[in-house]
Order: sequence, then structure tokens, then C-alpha cells
Amino acid sequence: MALIDQFTTQYGLVKKIDAFGYLDYLKSHADEPRKHGLVVLVTADTPLKASRGEGKTTTTIALIDALRARGIDATAVLRQPSMGITAAGSKGGASGGGKSSLSHPELIDWGLCGEMAAIENAQNLLVSFAEKAVDEGRIDTILVPRVSEVPSRSLRQIAVDRNKNNVPERVVLTPTCELMQIVVLSHSMDEIAERVSKMVAGTKDGNPVSFGSFIDLWRITGILADAVKPAKTETVNGSPVYVHCGPFANVSLGIPSLISVEMACALHDVVVVEAGYGADAGAQKWLDIACREFGAEWPAAAVVVTRASTWRDDPKLAWRYPFHVHRLENLGIPTFPLVNLWDGEDDQIDSLRDTAKSLNFRDPIIGNLFRDGGKALAPQLDEFVGALDSADDAANADAISAPADASDPEAADNRASHKGMGLVEDVKWIADNAYGVPADRVLTKVGFAESLAAATELCNGVGASIDDLAVVAVKSPATMTDDDSAATDERTVTLKKVEPHLGAGVVQVNLTTSLTTPMPKIV
Amino acid sequence: MALIDQFTTQYGLVKKIDAFGYLDYLKSHADEPRKHGLVVLVTADTPLKASRGEGKTTTTIALIDALRARGIDATAVLRQPSMGITAAGSKGGASGGGKSSLSHPELIDWGLCGEMAAIENAQNLLVSFAEKAVDEGRIDTILVPRVSEVPSRSLRQIAVDRNKNNVPERVVLTPTCELMQIVVLSHSMDEIAERVSKMVAGTKDGNPVSFGSFIDLWRITGILADAVKPAKTETVNGSPVYVHCGPFANVSLGIPSLISVEMACALHDVVVVEAGYGADAGAQKWLDIACREFGAEWPAAAVVVTRASTWRDDPKLAWRYPFHVHRLENLGIPTFPLVNLWDGEDDQIDSLRDTAKSLNFRDPIIGNLFRDGGKALAPQLDEFVGALDSADDAANADAISAPADASDPEAADNRASHKGMGLVEDVKWIADNAYGVPADRVLTKVGFAESLAAATELCNGVGASIDDLAVVAVKSPATMTDDDSAATDERTVTLKKVEPHLGAGVVQVNLTTSLTTPMPKIV
Repeated sequence: MALIDQFTTQYGLVKKIDAFGYLDYLKSHADEPRKHGLVVLVTADTPLKASRGEGKTTTTIALIDALRARGIDATAVLRQPSMGITAAGSKGGASGGGKSSLSHPELIDWGLCGEMAAIENAQNLLVSFAEKAVDEGRIDTILVPRVSEVPSRSLRQIAVDRNKNNVPERVVLTPTCELMQIVVLSHSMDEIAERVSKMVAGTKDGNPVSFGSFIDLWRITGILADAVKPAKTETVNGSPVYVHCGPFANVSLGIPSLISVEMACALHDVVVVEAGYGADAGAQKWLDIACREFGAEWPAAAVVVTRASTWRDDPKLAWRYPFHVHRLENLGIPTFPLVNLWDGEDDQIDSLRDTAKSLNFRDPIIGNLFRDGGKALAPQLDEFVGALDSADDAANADAISAPADASDPEAADNRASHKGMGLVEDVKWIADNAYGVPADRVLTKVGFAESLAAATELCNGVGASIDDLAVVAVKSPATMTDDDSAATDERTVTLKKVEPHLGAGVVQVNLTTSLTTPMPKIV
Repeated sequence: MALIDQFTTQYGLVKKIDAFGYLDYLKSHADEPRKHGLVVLVTADTPLKASRGEGKTTTTIALIDALRARGIDATAVLRQPSMGITAAGSKGGASGGGKSSLSHPELIDWGLCGEMAAIENAQNLLVSFAEKAVDEGRIDTILVPRVSEVPSRSLRQIAVDRNKNNVPERVVLTPTCELMQIVVLSHSMDEIAERVSKMVAGTKDGNPVSFGSFIDLWRITGILADAVKPAKTETVNGSPVYVHCGPFANVSLGIPSLISVEMACALHDVVVVEAGYGADAGAQKWLDIACREFGAEWPAAAVVVTRASTWRDDPKLAWRYPFHVHRLENLGIPTFPLVNLWDGEDDQIDSLRDTAKSLNFRDPIIGNLFRDGGKALAPQLDEFVGALDSADDAANADAISAPADASDPEAADNRASHKGMGLVEDVKWIADNAYGVPADRVLTKVGFAESLAAATELCNGVGASIDDLAVVAVKSPATMTDDDSAATDERTVTLKKVEPHLGAGVVQVNLTTSLTTPMPKIV
């Protein structure tokens, strides 16, 4: 029996893995056989609208099927889609399509093993505890929001205790809440408890009060007992796939849990991480938050998915795709353009290759992945596999000599923590690097300075510095700037609002056309 | 491999069983070996307060352990406790205690496999659909309430869409909602869909509009896919236990799902069903709702649990326990008093037996079940097992000659449907039979007539008759009448409010000191 099997339990048609236990065991048993898989980032072009995906999950599934067909032990780590949104009909599932599908998409799309519901309940219990704290005079204002797994637009603004105190509140979707971020970022139940204790419950006379000062943390971790375990499923071709955590990409972290990726790296040679929406959201957050601030693995390669129509149909937005591809390549990540063809687009292959060449891309990978699955990709992956081999060699060489970072000052700079960098400076860095908008065109909306000052004071009130928190950009998934259709030298990024999540250790900054409480329509 | 194994899946440390599929298979395969287990009802004295249990679950577990030690294939069917209430600390778990415990109480008490959360999400999606129906002009007033799995007193009355429409709403706990009742009462996913379609979403110009006229039912059943499957776990001694559905007993059905009991009867010889709180709630509802109106099995025997102190410490309430025992016995159900001793009460055994004798009880079963488990009971079960043997013989004889009901006019009357009986007459029948209050002392509160008229009109508006709905008494778990401490001939029952659940096929009637929206305190 393989070691991992001791940490694996059947859970209906999927398996659940005690990743905390497994990684802990590996830490204390250095001689235990394990792998050190390379991370490949699958990200995408900025979508034309939020409900239209480019096909990241479909690509991820086709890619690992193709790699495994070539004898490479590849796996994928996916985020869990929000069941409420799938059930509401406002978005399809997130489990691939056609020949590039998971074997049980209905399970992944429809609540998996209750992970999201557990996080919903635990966050709502925190609100109930905060209300009790109000009754007991510990706080006078609640800051932690209730969550709902099911979208309902009328919940954006509610008043509770109607006819008595009429307390204004807001309800957010589960994938946007701080507790989801905490589960994504934590490496043990103890860390989850510690982070929950640092969450700000509310204020008393304007001073922040953290949950740690008055709640039983075991009740929260009790609810999360199974939710912290990644699920294991497979593609229709039998390739292993892990699914864990689903923070939205537009208003939150946009990445699967760190432990699910670490676990996958200990078990497989190549770990494809899907991070969306576009590279400006998912990839930006994987690199700038997960890797830089929370120790996740730097990608050995990246695949940037687009659809033929997304890439080229709107001339004013055509700058975005090459921007993403070049940005990642310039970070030293071998970056492969991938065009996910739809029916009737096969005749565009030659012209797509020409365009890619004219943009100085690597030779693009092109295929109808829904129709042909991994078979469409396998013969096109020589260069991609070569890049992974080089990364693997480099990693092995590093293990003997010095770490890669130290040998390349520029690379080291890309990966160095921004802790201590001023928040606005940090956002300007992101705008410049990830959105192509230089610092002098980063504007602030009326009220931003006040919001930043209040957030700074809140952090100071619990003995933390806002500049030590990782910046989470909150913005529309379909745009990087105030107007992506504007001319290059006229694009701006406007900063609107700041909200620190002291438990998760992040600070959310609303940019451009952001929406803090996305509540998709029932369709 | 046993047939049931084909319908069983491991789900973490418990199993989940596709009971719909299994019972369906049995229906179409009459030659398939199956059992026809007897149902034993474990119910209790009316508790002194809602948060103080008499030990029904502890007794149920000890009882099946004791029966199995005697070579009888016994099992138990338990309701799923509300995780939110356990996590809130306002109530302990519901998985027994000490030597009379389940093997994994933490799983049962802390959300099981997400069943309750799925029902929560599905009911909330119904509300979202109702809101969409408002936007589309199909309805103007929403009647279906949102639910929360986590208690929060401020949610009892809320206003949604604050600052715009300020729509008043109420939020109820998941175990009180109509969708929970539907899952309890349904025998197939099709029946669930049909019942959901009959649920009243709201009104348009005062006329009721059902969900069936505008929603995609598959989205609701999609969410419930795993929630409809009973869980199988075991006692610390390895006796099989099924857990499914958790409607509150005070404001809802108070019984486990009908299919979990039917499935258990097909698999075991004796099926102990726990129905609480007291006999006035759980047993009343099992007999008068499940058996009479929904075809559940009439109990072959009953055990009425009390604590030594509950039974005798308050002279004004001491009438309740013998009332329950005699009532069930008079229904033709062999009824066994059981005293669940606590530490330091062993010396009361003789006097408890004397009291039981003076009350014309059967010889009571007495033991410290927490401390001694099933071993405390096994030697005392001769008469109990004898009663089951007689019931079994009678059932077998019936199978050859005529059904029991036909041979005993009084028994047949007890079990005949009340469909068509006027609602008030029906409630008077319950007050007389289950609470000991004759019809002339059933009073109505100001407003009751209006509430009844409105409910009647609502039913008529969808072509149903309120008199065809099964009456669900909504009342405090700690009292049967307006004042249980009053003298026998002064006790009254006051009717307060009527609320039809047309999907579930029940009508809730608030009595005495009822609370429609119980929201326990966070402790």
C-alpha cells in the first residue's frame, strides 16, 4: 500500500485526502519516497465577459491526458466551482467538456462533498458569535459578513433584527469570504485556528476586536474537519485530478488550496494548476500572492489559453492576449500560447500560427479540445515537455549548488516578498507589471484615501501593519484597467476601496470596475 | 455480495445507501430475499425543558446493543442532529453517550455528509427562484422562507434589498423547513420533484403560485442527490445504525425519513425508531402523521424513556409520564417504561419499580445506560422480546388470513386516515388523545380564525383542501397544554396559527407556547 493510501478515504465516487496529515508525515520522515513535481500554470486571456470562459479547465484536463499519454506522471489541481452559481444557472460547471471532461462532473459542480457548505456554515457561525459578542458588550459593530452559497441579489444589503434594532448587514457568496481564503492558505488545522483567531469580528468604540479574544476555535475547526481535505477524482481517461477550495478570482484569491498543490507535487512529476479568470487575475494571484507571499512553487511553465475569437475579434482588446503571454515569458516562465478551437474554426489554424509568429510567441498549441481531447495536444507538446525537462534539470542542479533565485538577481527580485512595501506602491507595481499601466496612471477615487486610512488604523488596532498584508486585487474579471479599449497610453487604473482580512493575511483593494459582492442572476 | 452492498458507498467513516434504488429494486424483484422487520418506537417523557434530553438516543443505542447480544438482528434509525445547534453550543450532540454511543459521534453531530447543508442550499435556491419570479411579475409576495443551518436570533426577522425595496422576510433553521419535510416523506426523487412543484412560492394579487409553474425542478433535485441517501454507521459495539433527516420535533415532523425506516425493515428483524422530544411530539407524529397518513409501519412495541428525576421531581408534572405510557398501551402497542438512571440513582431502583407497579405499568426496564451500555438492559428484555415475538407471529398470521386492522375495529380506527376531517376537529382529536385535553377545552386565540381562513383560501387557490393535509402540531417541546402544571380538568390547549405546506402535504398548527422560528442561543 502506498503511503498516500493511508491518508485517503473513499467518499462516494471521489476520494478525500488528509493532505495536512500526509504532508506532515513527509516532513517528519525525510527518507520516505516522494516526488518533487513541477508546477505548470494554466491561465487564460482576459475573457470578453465574466460568464464566457476560454476553456482553462478543458485545457487543463486535455493537457494532463496528453502528458500521461506520453508517459509523464502529470496531474491537475482544480478549484471547486460554486454549486450555488451552477444551480442558479448563471454559469455552467467547471469540470471541462466533451472529451476533456472529468469522469463525474456532476459531483464537482454540484457541491462535491459539502466543502463549500461547511465553509459557509463556519463563517456564518462566526457572525453568530459576533452577535453574541454584541450582546455581551464586547463589540458594538460587526464587521464580518454572513455568507450564502446560493446567489440572491436582494441579500447584498439586508437589515437583520427587523422592527427592533434594524442592523444593516451585507451577505457575500461563500467563495468570496475570508474563511475560504484561510482554508486556501493554511497548512494545518492549527494554522486555520490561529488565522480565525486573528480575524476581526468587529469594533468596540472604533477599536477592532479579533475573534481569538472570545470564541471557541474548536467549533469552527470542527465544522471544517472534512472541508480541509482535497478531493481526488479523475478525467474520463483516468488521469488523476485533485479539487480543493474555490475562492473567486475576481474578488478573491482565484487559486486552489496551497496544500492541494503541495500534496500533488509530492505525488506526481508535473502538477498543472488552473488559476483564472485571465492571467491578470489567476496567474497574477498565483505568482504575486501564492508564490511570493505564501511560499507556493514558482511555475516551471505556463499555458495561456484563448479562443480564436477572444484573441482577435475585438481589435481594441487584441493587445491583452500578447500582453499576458509576453509578461509571463519575461518573468522567466516558458509560456505556451494555446488556442482552444470551437466547431468550424479548424481552418483558422494556419492564420493563427502566422499571427503568433508575428507576435514573437512560441509556436502555439492549437486544438479542438472538446472534440478531440488530449489527442489533439499530445503531438504538439515536444517543446513544452522540453521546457519541463530543462526546469527539472535546473531544479536538480539547484539542489546541488545554489537555489535558482540566488543565481539570477532579476528572477530573485520577481519572487521577493513585498512585505513592508506601501500598499499604494504595491498596487502600482501590480498595475505596471500585470496590467501594463505605469504608476503615474494609477489614480485614486474620492474616498480611497479615507478607506485606506481607516483600513490602516484597523490593522494598527490589532498590532499589525497593512503593508505586511498581501494585496488581493478586486476587479471585474473582464477588464484590467478602467477601460481596456482605450489607447495604450491612456489606460488608467483607479483605486477605490481597501478591506483588510487580517486572518487570511491579505488586503483587498478594489480597482476599476470591481464589485465586492458579486451575486449572479438566477437564469 | 449482499444486494444492499450494490446500493452502498463508503463515504468517509460512514456509508451512504441509495435507499430509493434499493427499495425500488425490491419492489420489482419480489423473489429477492428480504426481511420484514418490526418497528419499535423509542420515545420519551415530556422533558422539563427543551435543552434537557431524557436519553432517547442513548436508550436506542443500548437497546439494539442488548437485543443483538441476545441474537436478535436489531438496528436503529436516528434523526440527524442540527450541526448548527451543536456548533453553537446550545445543545449537545445526539449520538448517545458513554457505553451507549455511536462509534463516530463527531461525524453525526458535525454535519454528517452535508445532507442538512444541501437541504439548506436547495431551499435557499427556491427563495432565489421566487425572487426571480417577482422580477418577472409572476408573483408579488414571497411566502417561502430562507433557511440557515446556523442559529442567529437576529435572522428571525430581516429585511432584504435594504435601502431599495426593504422587503420583510424571516429566516428559519434548516430542520424546520418544508424541503426537509419533503425529503422525510418522499419515496423517490420523482416524488421529491413533484412535491417541490406543489410548494407555494408566493402569491400574485393574493392568489397562490406554486413552484412547479416556473422552476427547473432538476436543479433542486440535483442539489439533493446525496442528501436523500441515508447514512449507515454503528454503535461502539458494532450494531448497525442508520441516520437520515432531522426535522425538529417541536415545530416539524420529529421523525427520521420514511425510506430509512423502510429500508431498515427490509434488512433487519427489529428496527428501533427514535422519535422525540416526548411522546406528545415524536410518538404522536410517528403514529398520527407517518403511520396514519403516509403509510409508515405501526410499532410492534414502544419504549418510553424517562429520567428518575423528570418522572417524579415535580408533582404537578408527574401526570405526564404515566399518561404517555398508558396512551400508547391503550393504542394496542405493548409499551415498556424505561428509566435511564444517572450517577447516584442506583438506590432508587426498588422504589421506581414500586411506583411503576402502583401505576399499572408493565415491569419497567431500569439502568444506567451511559455507564453500563446494553449490558444493563439485556437481562431485563424477556417480556419485551416476548412482545416482539407475539407481534411477529401475529404479522405472519395476518399474512395468511386478514390484516390486523380488519380484525380489530378499534385498532383500525386508530390507524385510519384523518383526510377530510376538519382541521379544528383534527386538532381536537390530537389534544384529546395525545395531550389529554377534551375538545371543549381546546380554545382559539384571537386571530386564529383569520389565519385558518387565509390558509384555507391558500389551499383552495391551488385546488387543494386544507382538510386533506396532515396536521403537524407546532408547540413547545416541554409542554403539551397551555399549562401542564394546572389541574387535570383545567388544562387547555389554545390554537394560534395555521400554515399549510402544500408540497409536504402537511398543515402546521401552532398550539400553546409554540415558537415558529426557534433560534437557540449561542452558548
